Amino acid sequence: MNYRLIIRQLGLLVLVLSAVLLSIWLWSAIAIGFADAAVFSLLWSTCAGVVLGLVLFLGGTSRRDQQGTGTMGRREALLLVSTSWLIGAVVSSLPFLLWARIDGGENHPFHSIVNCFFEAMSGLTTTGATILTDISTLPAPLLFWRAMIQWLGGLGIVVLFVAVLPSLGAGGKKLFKIEAPGPEPKGVRPHIRETARFLWLIYVSLTLIQIIAYKFAGLPWFDASCHALSTLATGGFSTQNGSIGGYDSRLVSIITIVFMVIASMNFGLIYAATRGRLRIIWEDSEFRCYLFLLAVGSVVIVCSLLGAGGGITTTTGTIEPATIPNALTQGVFTAVSIQTNTGFTTANYNTWPFVAKAVIVMMMLIGGCAGSTAGGIKIIRVWLAFRIMLSELERAFRPNVVRPLKVGKSNIDPELKLATIAYVLGVLVLFSIGAGTLMVLESGNPKCNIATAATASIATICTVGPGFANVGAIENYGWFSDASKLLLCLLMAIGRLEIFAVLVLITPRFWRST
Amino acid sequence: MNYRLIIRQLGLLVLVLSAVLLSIWLWSAIAIGFADAAVFSLLWSTCAGVVLGLVLFLGGTSRRDQQGTGTMGRREALLLVSTSWLIGAVVSSLPFLLWARIDGGENHPFHSIVNCFFEAMSGLTTTGATILTDISTLPAPLLFWRAMIQWLGGLGIVVLFVAVLPSLGAGGKKLFKIEAPGPEPKGVRPHIRETARFLWLIYVSLTLIQIIAYKFAGLPWFDASCHALSTLATGGFSTQNGSIGGYDSRLVSIITIVFMVIASMNFGLIYAATRGRLRIIWEDSEFRCYLFLLAVGSVVIVCSLLGAGGGITTTTGTIEPATIPNALTQGVFTAVSIQTNTGFTTANYNTWPFVAKAVIVMMMLIGGCAGSTAGGIKIIRVWLAFRIMLSELERAFRPNVVRPLKVGKSNIDPELKLATIAYVLGVLVLFSIGAGTLMVLESGNPKCNIATAATASIATICTVGPGFANVGAIENYGWFSDASKLLLCLLMAIGRLEIFAVLVLITPRFWRST
Repeated sequence: MNYRLIIRQLGLLVLVLSAVLLSIWLWSAIAIGFADAAVFSLLWSTCAGVVLGLVLFLGGTSRRDQQGTGTMGRREALLLVSTSWLIGAVVSSLPFLLWARIDGGENHPFHSIVNCFFEAMSGLTTTGATILTDISTLPAPLLFWRAMIQWLGGLGIVVLFVAVLPSLGAGGKKLFKIEAPGPEPKGVRPHIRETARFLWLIYVSLTLIQIIAYKFAGLPWFDASCHALSTLATGGFSTQNGSIGGYDSRLVSIITIVFMVIASMNFGLIYAATRGRLRIIWEDSEFRCYLFLLAVGSVVIVCSLLGAGGGITTTTGTIEPATIPNALTQGVFTAVSIQTNTGFTTANYNTWPFVAKAVIVMMMLIGGCAGSTAGGIKIIRVWLAFRIMLSELERAFRPNVVRPLKVGKSNIDPELKLATIAYVLGVLVLFSIGAGTLMVLESGNPKCNIATAATASIATICTVGPGFANVGAIENYGWFSDASKLLLCLLMAIGRLEIFAVLVLITPRFWRST
Repeated sequence: MNYRLIIRQLGLLVLVLSAVLLSIWLWSAIAIGFADAAVFSLLWSTCAGVVLGLVLFLGGTSRRDQQGTGTMGRREALLLVSTSWLIGAVVSSLPFLLWARIDGGENHPFHSIVNCFFEAMSGLTTTGATILTDISTLPAPLLFWRAMIQWLGGLGIVVLFVAVLPSLGAGGKKLFKIEAPGPEPKGVRPHIRETARFLWLIYVSLTLIQIIAYKFAGLPWFDASCHALSTLATGGFSTQNGSIGGYDSRLVSIITIVFMVIASMNFGLIYAATRGRLRIIWEDSEFRCYLFLLAVGSVVIVCSLLGAGGGITTTTGTIEPATIPNALTQGVFTAVSIQTNTGFTTANYNTWPFVAKAVIVMMMLIGGCAGSTAGGIKIIRVWLAFRIMLSELERAFRPNVVRPLKVGKSNIDPELKLATIAYVLGVLVLFSIGAGTLMVLESGNPKCNIATAATASIATICTVGPGFANVGAIENYGWFSDASKLLLCLLMAIGRLEIFAVLVLITPRFWRST
């Protein structure tokens, strides 16, 4: 393995993060003043980042290693992806930690290194789970940084899965290769770079459009920016304790819904659409499946809310009557936020009927489209798995009938079938291991019951953020022990990087040179 | 589909059941007297069975149908298997129902048709879940009938999966074909018949040996017989409210452990062993894996019992000190009873530490060996699935490396890999659907919390019997609504018949003539 090549790339990443930190520092220094503790912590983080970045960059190499086998192979790429998220989280956590040590006081959650790392990892993986009890007391520069790391993490994922991974062979690439009719990177460097640039442009444009839309809805620039950054990344960090529900505005909710839906689409499709092939979006089976699931989920949740009567408790604690408009807004918002694995909240769905909760858990697991910033198993995989199961059932009585399984116009080969089913099973197994380990780590903590542990495990693996019970819509992850928080960080990384990039690192064969 | 062929076979089945009923009637009439209500109900059930059996038998045909395509094809066989268990449960429930209507009183659980059907289905599928609150008040002939239907169900499964299904292509056949080195039925009728006869002989012999062992341990003939019948079927029906724990005898527990372990072995292996190929048992990878899992599960449970201190609550309510011998007996008994999906209990494991409970749930899901009376996913499948997942992980960084997956000396082909993973995923999906539907059906019933619904779903699909919380070791299924009970019956049948035989019936393609 060519480690020095990886180290150089990591150095580059840290330098890019430092550059972003520097620009936020400049901006907030102008707005608030240089003496502010939060501004100061940004400066120090930038310095630390630059030093670390330079050390890594200069310590690495861009050349082949001595055996000449180096360059960026599959194994190097997988290791790079995992370590990127790890070192990215470490650097991203610095502003939180430094601020808390300078100004936050000993009782502030950010005084703990683990808490800062959790928050940063939750941001970079676009999960949106927080350890903060009172978000609104955080200084504005840090709130913006929280939103920014989500946006950067989301961008990283889009570029990774749409432009880079298809040529690497990890995880979702084959699914994407088959499904996305737009870009077909064939491993040619210039082509990948071009695609990545284009995706970056789309991502930035969508963010700007959403900021303007929020502004029209009456949000201040700051709130609009932070929430737009979180939305496009399907992250879920908010600047308010009540999340989007804190604005108590139907228009803001609707804008958020629209952009969550877009952010969870296959970015390859959006790319194709911008090149004039609009029909391609509608012809895409995953996209249609996605809309169908959103519609069904919303209908079930809205009906269960109307059926249960009573009121709908919002995230700010007020109780709205369960009228049709209220149930519609709250139900559709929650359905979209969960299915897209964003995790914004407007209502405390912890109190909803069982049917709604069951649908929410299913939507968490299914997630958004492949090649998007959403998490979860991904719709195309669930759809394939469902069809494979049906054909297996048929094989029980017609073992010799071969029905080719198609997505769009391409046949799914047996290898991909196996990979898909194994992936779905893998997510379920990981979820069980995660929930079980949480229960063991938190044994003796009455807050961590089965529902809490199970949904915390799902909500982190699927990068949703909030779960149920004591990690519900109006709760947070601050009360977990440090060990549990680190476990949850691992689950977020595993879920975000489509299992393989993280788990291969623990197989001995990965480290063998042959 | 040649329905009349199926009807004739069903008629035969009902006539066989009637013959068994008749002999139990004769025996108990001599022991108790002809006038007893339970004896009377057996007689009436026999009559009803004979009439129904004759009608079906004579209404059916053994000839090809008009198109000449008939005889027993795959579809006919699958339909026959499912309907056998259904009609078998109907006939088996008659003695319970008739007795309750004659003598049981209006408040007896067996006064309800659904309850009787549940008990009979639970017996025939060797689940061992009961709706009875007070088992010991049941008259002896009915207790014996309860044990007998488990034994018959177990025998049916052994013959089905070891002798018949391999030639039909449903479910576990391929696994068996590969794994079992002994009998290799190639679809040749005489060969299957011979194997079936031999298995029947082994099953009867083992039962007799266990009865004698129990007798030596001091049990009366009646108790010894009933429990031996339940054990060999990995059923779990007992004649006592405290199950095996009711005897408070370490020797009885140990005998039960030994025979549960045997009953959950691949009967093909036992068959091979009786033909002098004893080494074959030890060389079988599934068997070794089975012993390994039993050992690990037992160790974890015993350690958690010793670690938790306090006492061990038995099924009779007494609290034993958690000494090493007590923890060993209770822990190993529970581990074996759960892994073999028998469901006998000596301790109320509902109060055990989380780790023990988690291990118990895992053992329920994994189950025993293929080709045995045990339920669950089956060890060979879990083992294969585990290895397939590992090789998928490796494919992320070495996509071109092909490592053949072997069981014993045979390669596992890609089709079987897919079938195995799909099966495992199918069980998990069914479990979730079962638990969710139970929650919906029992909404408003505070007894049915998530833990109860989830473990009721697992315990029925895996044919264990007892679960946790309100379906725990000392609880019963009587409090469920009728709709839930029927759902649980369906889950038992699905789990027992390896999913396919039941679920194919709901696919439209199954019913198409082409």
